[in-house]
Amino acid sequence: MKNAVQSGAPPAVRAREQCAELDARDELASARELFSLPPGVIYLDGNSLGAMPCATAARVKDAIERQWGEKLITSWNDAGWVDLPQRLGAKIAALVGAADDEVVVADSTSVNLFKLLSGALAQRPERKVILSERGNFPTDLYIAQGLARQLGGQHELRLVERHDLAASLTSDIAVLLATQVDYRTGSRLDLASLTAAAHAAGALTIWDLAHSAGAFRVELDAAQADFAVGCGYKYLNGGPGAPAFLFVARRHQQDFAQPLSGWFGHEQPFLFEPDYRPAPGIARALCGSPPILSMVALEAGVDTMREALGGDSMALLEAKAAALTACFIDLVAPLAEEYQLELVTPRDPAARGNQVSYACADGERAYALTQALIARGVIGDFRTPNIARFGFAPLYLRFVDVWDAVEHLRVVLARHEWDNARFRARRAVT
Amino acid sequence: MKNAVQSGAPPAVRAREQCAELDARDELASARELFSLPPGVIYLDGNSLGAMPCATAARVKDAIERQWGEKLITSWNDAGWVDLPQRLGAKIAALVGAADDEVVVADSTSVNLFKLLSGALAQRPERKVILSERGNFPTDLYIAQGLARQLGGQHELRLVERHDLAASLTSDIAVLLATQVDYRTGSRLDLASLTAAAHAAGALTIWDLAHSAGAFRVELDAAQADFAVGCGYKYLNGGPGAPAFLFVARRHQQDFAQPLSGWFGHEQPFLFEPDYRPAPGIARALCGSPPILSMVALEAGVDTMREALGGDSMALLEAKAAALTACFIDLVAPLAEEYQLELVTPRDPAARGNQVSYACADGERAYALTQALIARGVIGDFRTPNIARFGFAPLYLRFVDVWDAVEHLRVVLARHEWDNARFRARRAVT
Repeated sequence: MKNAVQSGAPPAVRAREQCAELDARDELASARELFSLPPGVIYLDGNSLGAMPCATAARVKDAIERQWGEKLITSWNDAGWVDLPQRLGAKIAALVGAADDEVVVADSTSVNLFKLLSGALAQRPERKVILSERGNFPTDLYIAQGLARQLGGQHELRLVERHDLAASLTSDIAVLLATQVDYRTGSRLDLASLTAAAHAAGALTIWDLAHSAGAFRVELDAAQADFAVGCGYKYLNGGPGAPAFLFVARRHQQDFAQPLSGWFGHEQPFLFEPDYRPAPGIARALCGSPPILSMVALEAGVDTMREALGGDSMALLEAKAAALTACFIDLVAPLAEEYQLELVTPRDPAARGNQVSYACADGERAYALTQALIARGVIGDFRTPNIARFGFAPLYLRFVDVWDAVEHLRVVLARHEWDNARFRARRAVT
Repeated sequence: MKNAVQSGAPPAVRAREQCAELDARDELASARELFSLPPGVIYLDGNSLGAMPCATAARVKDAIERQWGEKLITSWNDAGWVDLPQRLGAKIAALVGAADDEVVVADSTSVNLFKLLSGALAQRPERKVILSERGNFPTDLYIAQGLARQLGGQHELRLVERHDLAASLTSDIAVLLATQVDYRTGSRLDLASLTAAAHAAGALTIWDLAHSAGAFRVELDAAQADFAVGCGYKYLNGGPGAPAFLFVARRHQQDFAQPLSGWFGHEQPFLFEPDYRPAPGIARALCGSPPILSMVALEAGVDTMREALGGDSMALLEAKAAALTACFIDLVAPLAEEYQLELVTPRDPAARGNQVSYACADGERAYALTQALIARGVIGDFRTPNIARFGFAPLYLRFVDVWDAVEHLRVVLARHEWDNARFRARRAVT
């Protein structure tokens, strides 16, 4: 377990100057210059939509005006659009502890989960249970429900509490479908030990890395993970609704079959054969034509992270995230006690992702709290029913941002702005 | 049936000046100014990747720099990202003869076909045959094969020749899956009569409008069509790999269930409920988070078409396309005879899409022919095994372009450039 001292943060910060000192010593500090953040904003929602890299607009402009506008159809070859899903997948692979040929970029997380779950169930035909957590991100459950319905009702989606997953790995479980970092509480599962437990029970694993990839160290191959999906628009800073990625361990690729067998997953798409023949490797997980402009933006996000990390591993990123979240938890602690904000995020940095969440007894208060902070330029978000959530993307956040955010929170709480009708008016996406 | 005279083209063009006159009289001539085409290029491949609208780069730049970069997560509400799939779908609906709430933009054509085919088969549980054409675009067949495999082998994908589709509508057919315009020959099926024939046989229809939408009049509702998919990156000029759209007739929406039941298809995605409840209308066909940047580019393409057409219907567009393709066929005719290029596209404009294709006895010659033309700035494409294909996007092509393209073809043929090794070297995407 890492702790705040190891990662450079003193056990307790008591003044903004101490935060400034931590920033001065931060080896990742210069990464912030690779992002464009609006003035006056402290952005604690990079776990929902990552910030915009400075490189993105020019990269997409080039893809539009030169690659598409001038070079037209030839860019499928000459600009490498045709294998961008694999090329970008290889870059992401390096961020999640996978081999180059084990990751591909495609579709959305939901669509990719459907592919992986279909393929995984087919590899365990004698077992009929998908094990997941009751509080999993809903789209993961919806996809499992949709697939189970389609397969004729023989399969069961068995939902248990998150902390009961390991104990629930009975011999009828075909697949464990788990999200490593809980989107509400920020609790982080131990990918390696849970994967080992699943394997010991004869089950396969599908990990949802939505809040993991680009956030901290993920070692898919070291953990012998089977399958995984991840999100391009959170910590990879790929832009709104950026394409997702998926991972299929090399040992499973040859037997991996998935029903969304579109032409980009064919061994030779441009032979236009009438019968599907899956591509030999990870490309068989592709389906239709890739949305190139969104994918170019994602590549800019991934390249930005690679540039920021340089030759360093993800360890530096993970240590900074641990320190930022620890600093926030420490500073908020007296306020949390005074105003009855319940910290629902684990205090052990190894047991949490890069977010800190508080539950309010009154859900409307949690909502109004985040809205009042947003009005002051501190952007976090609300998660139903009663969670105020704050994400700490280590590439572009500073320790002084943590300090300043807490100062705003102090004022919002002191003024009881959660009772202000203006902040209670609900919006579609929150 | 329209003919060249009706649409403003004389029965036979004999000089470039006549083409210039046709351009001068073309009510759609000014639409070309809405596109950026590289100098020296005659682009006859808009049926593969539509040209770049002038508006696109600025629209995407705004989405990146202002909506994402400055406004961050708030743009899901304030910039309307959250309902862009429906809003853009409504705009496309007007181009394909559908009601606003019958079309939505999502995913790729292949993924959308999977949804529709799943939903359609579920509405005909007692029937087990998918009827399609042997020469259908391969991804349509691959998706049907993938779905049939997943459903346990009870379903049959029955492939017949295109001209035998109507006669093959036996009482065991659940779904007719047909592409209106053949991607190789350009032959166009009569959507209304084939839909009626399918309904008379108790079958549902899924139309692939890849080469139809934005190309000519499509009247989905008038034809009582059931389901359809279409492509954003061809005649809608949405950019490389632009998201696709799908159509579900209003009368089917309440019973429509599809297995890719991701959170964007939920009745209330942001309540984060554990159980999937489909949205009441077309939104239930959505799955994961939409790739906003690619969708913004598609919206620019669709808006460009709407601006070009003004209050006019698609009839003007269709008439111009018929005249352009007729002019090309007429001018090439003597060359085709001399060099044994077989016209495989119907001569009746109502029976073809906006493309003209020729087959060569020697497939390598067809390939080298298109490459030699590309080297001269005339961009068409090759389709295996032996087809040279030329598309005529009526929004940005002129009659003088047709003339000039044929003059280049004349030179290429006279020099027998199809025997030139330089033009025979194959590329990945052709």
